[in-house]
Formats: sequence, structure tokens, C-alpha cells
Amino acid sequence: MASVICDSVLVTGSNRGIGLELVHQLVDLPKSPGHIFAGCRDPGGPKAQELRDLAQKHQGVITVVQLDTDSPDSIKEASNLVESKLNGKGLNLIINNAGVNIPGSLVETGKKEMVDSYTTNVVGPMLIAKNFHPLLCKAAAQFPQSSMSCSRPAIVNVSTLLSSITRCPENFYRSPMYPYRICKAALNMLTRCLAEDFRKDGILVASLHPGWVRTEMGGPQAPLTTAESVSGMIKVITSLTEKDSGTLLDWEGKNIPW
Amino acid sequence: MASVICDSVLVTGSNRGIGLELVHQLVDLPKSPGHIFAGCRDPGGPKAQELRDLAQKHQGVITVVQLDTDSPDSIKEASNLVESKLNGKGLNLIINNAGVNIPGSLVETGKKEMVDSYTTNVVGPMLIAKNFHPLLCKAAAQFPQSSMSCSRPAIVNVSTLLSSITRCPENFYRSPMYPYRICKAALNMLTRCLAEDFRKDGILVASLHPGWVRTEMGGPQAPLTTAESVSGMIKVITSLTEKDSGTLLDWEGKNIPW
Repeated sequence: MASVICDSVLVTGSNRGIGLELVHQLVDLPKSPGHIFAGCRDPGGPKAQELRDLAQKHQGVITVVQLDTDSPDSIKEASNLVESKLNGKGLNLIINNAGVNIPGSLVETGKKEMVDSYTTNVVGPMLIAKNFHPLLCKAAAQFPQSSMSCSRPAIVNVSTLLSSITRCPENFYRSPMYPYRICKAALNMLTRCLAEDFRKDGILVASLHPGWVRTEMGGPQAPLTTAESVSGMIKVITSLTEKDSGTLLDWEGKNIPW
Repeated sequence: MASVICDSVLVTGSNRGIGLELVHQLVDLPKSPGHIFAGCRDPGGPKAQELRDLAQKHQGVITVVQLDTDSPDSIKEASNLVESKLNGKGLNLIINNAGVNIPGSLVETGKKEMVDSYTTNVVGPMLIAKNFHPLLCKAAAQFPQSSMSCSRPAIVNVSTLLSSITRCPENFYRSPMYPYRICKAALNMLTRCLAEDFRKDGILVASLHPGWVRTEMGGPQAPLTTAESVSGMIKVITSLTEKDSGTLLDWEGKNIPW
């Protein structure tokens, strides 16, 4: 992986789990991005200490950005900050990784669980796409002749195998997770809509399943380490081409049906 | 269609459009259901006059039920009312027809449009399934030997062709409709989850696309009349079998991919 993955990248939810590991591995690439914007809800809080330390170690490359995906105002302000840091250049890549997993059987699921999941996991990425669209278009203009890839502008929405309506019968009984499954299926439709909408701008949009990972969210029984998952995700992101826009892939690059 | 479609049915959003026509055609069937519960948000309001007149004409068969699918309390109260009217019997069929179409390109779509659509079109049907589950199970117990059908308990969620992630590229440019498409894809996942969850109880769950219909929601340029659409829907609902549980069908019975 000696090629430059992209000039600049925003990773949301980057203070822990997959998000933090993404920042770690991106900055350690032989040709790392020039700008890594690490979005997190509470950059000053105790849960962002490791991210702050990492940013301190890579000053001038990693910028920690306050970004609460539940808040339209926070998203708007983050886009302004990123724009100012890019000095007139565009933003190449957004990895919408911030998310919540509110599990729940039908009995355990109420209006609040449903709406909270949807707000963070679907409305947030929608508003990020909308607010950062001008910066993505600016990056597209820098490479007017190239075909789609993550070196040109791209959005990667972190989804899940559990978002697959087709494959729901295989795994429903093991983990019903109504709020999570339902909002992640919605996220896939967002990916598909954005892929169509932004095709004219040369912006690639894909959903990515990171595998079942041993994070705070995935739990200790998950088979994959965060490092294994993220290493696979970066490989897949680097290899994305036009045909992948509007699809759902796993961390090994395999297609998952809707 | 001389067979009894079901003993009892609840139709949500039944004061206009497809919902009102469903009540009309159900009560006019040669062997109509013994109980038709016609849910609507504001049964005393001016927009429910035609429904009130119809219920007046078919006293003892049609019961108008206050049912605001945005309100968990209203759903709970409606289930209590329906239970009391059924005198110990179960409820056969629920047609989750209530819904809103908040259209919108990306630029026109904000957090409110997204959350409002999801609340009415997804959270409502989820809470209805949950609250009416005991009544559906009671109906299943009345026919312990039969295979799945709408004469045994069933839930039909009114979805749309625009919910199909697979077919999004075909129709996206004509009608972006972010809030509507995204929440209806989520509704399909709800259908699939409920189909798996309720299989053990003998309850069939399917999504149904009514076609593009000349209603207040569909607009005047739609090719189908409400009567044509509903006549097709009732034919499809009557013919549902176990293999259809967890699928998305159109008003002619054709399968639509996720």
C-alpha cells in the first residue's frame, strides 16, 4: 500500500474503537494523507485522551475536530473548520464511522431507541454529506480527468452485515437488534441515493461492513481485532473504483446484498 | 373473491386515499370481515367526514378508532379498544397504511424531515406490531393447524417501489425524495425482522407497494386510480401464503427486490 490513499480525510467518531484505529493506521501509512481530521463528540473529555495524544504526536497532520453527528450546528461548524484548515483545497475522503448500536428485541424497543439510533446513524451521515458536499466538489475539481476512487472525493459509510435485508433471516435470531438493523438498512439507502446524486460530481459513495470487531460496541466475543478490521477496510477503501459506488462491501471487499 | 378475507382487520390512516378505499372495498366484499377497525388520527375532524359516514352506514362492522401512529399512548389505547370490541377473539389482519411522504432533494432535507418521516412510517408500524402482537397471537390460536395466510394473523406494511435499494438508480433522478425512500427502506427491514420474529407465532408479515396512485400523496399525474390499486392490493393480500412472509410485493403480486 505504497500509493497515497488520499490528500485529506475526515473520520467521524474517531476517539475510540474503529475510528481511533483508522486514524492510527492512516497516519502510519508509508504515504499518509496530508490532513487527517479526527471528528469526535467531546474532544476535551476523558474518552478522547488517546486521540489527543496521537494528534499531539502528529501535529500538522492530525486535527481533532469537535463533531457531534446528532447536532446540525456542530456539523456545520466542523465543515467550516475543515474548510479553513484546507487553505482553499478540497476534502478527499469522509469516513462516516460515528454510530451507536442500541440493541433490542421488539419488547425492549420503543420510540426513543428507534429515533436515537436513526438520528446518529442515518441523519448524521446525511447532514455530513450535505454540509461537506462543496468541499468534496472542490476536491473533484482538482482531478477533473480521473475516474472515481478514494483519491478523488469519496464518502464511506460504515454499515454492517446486519443491515442486509436479504441476509436478515440468517442472523436475526442470534441478534434481533431492531433499532440497529432498521436504521442501518436506512443508511444503505442513503448510500445508494448519495451515489446516484453525487455521480455527476465525480464523488464515490459506498457502504462498508467492518466485520464483527472486538470493540466496546462489538463486545469481547467478536472474532476480529480492531487492527485486522481496519487494515482490511483501508485496503478496500484504497481499491474502490467507480463500479463500487452505491454498493455495500465487507472489510475483505466482498459484496453484501441489500 | 368469494372467500372470507379475514374475520377482523385494522386499517391505519383510513380517513382518506388508499386507507379509505381499503375500508370501502373490504366492507363491500361478498364475504366481508366481521370487524373493520378504521384507524385515523382525528376521527372527529373535518377530514374524517367520509369515513364517519361510511361507518354510520355499516354500524356494527366498521369501528372508527382514534389512532395517531406518532403517539405510543394512542397506539396503546387503540389496542385496548380493539381488544374490548373483539370480545375475547383475536385480530386477524393489520394493514399499516398510515404514512407521510415528505419529499425532498438533499438540499431540501434536514433533521426534522428525516425524523418526522421515520417516526410516522417506521416507528409507528413497529409500535403497532408490538402492541397488537397479543391480539394477533390470539387469532393464531384460533387456527392452530392452518398454514400462514391473511385469514390467520398477518401484518401488511404499505411500502413503495421507491423503498427498493436495488432499483434506486432507475428512479432516483425522477424523484430523489430522501426522507421517504430512506425511511421506507427501513420499513422493509422492519417487515423482514417481524416476519422472522413472528414466524413462531404463525403470523405472516409482508410489505406491499400499492403502485403510483392518484391520491393526495401520489399527485394527479399518477397512472393508477385508488380503486384499481386497492382492488389489486386486496387480491394480493387474500392470496398471501407462507412463502410471501418477509417479502416486498407490488399490487399485482410481483416481487420487488430489496
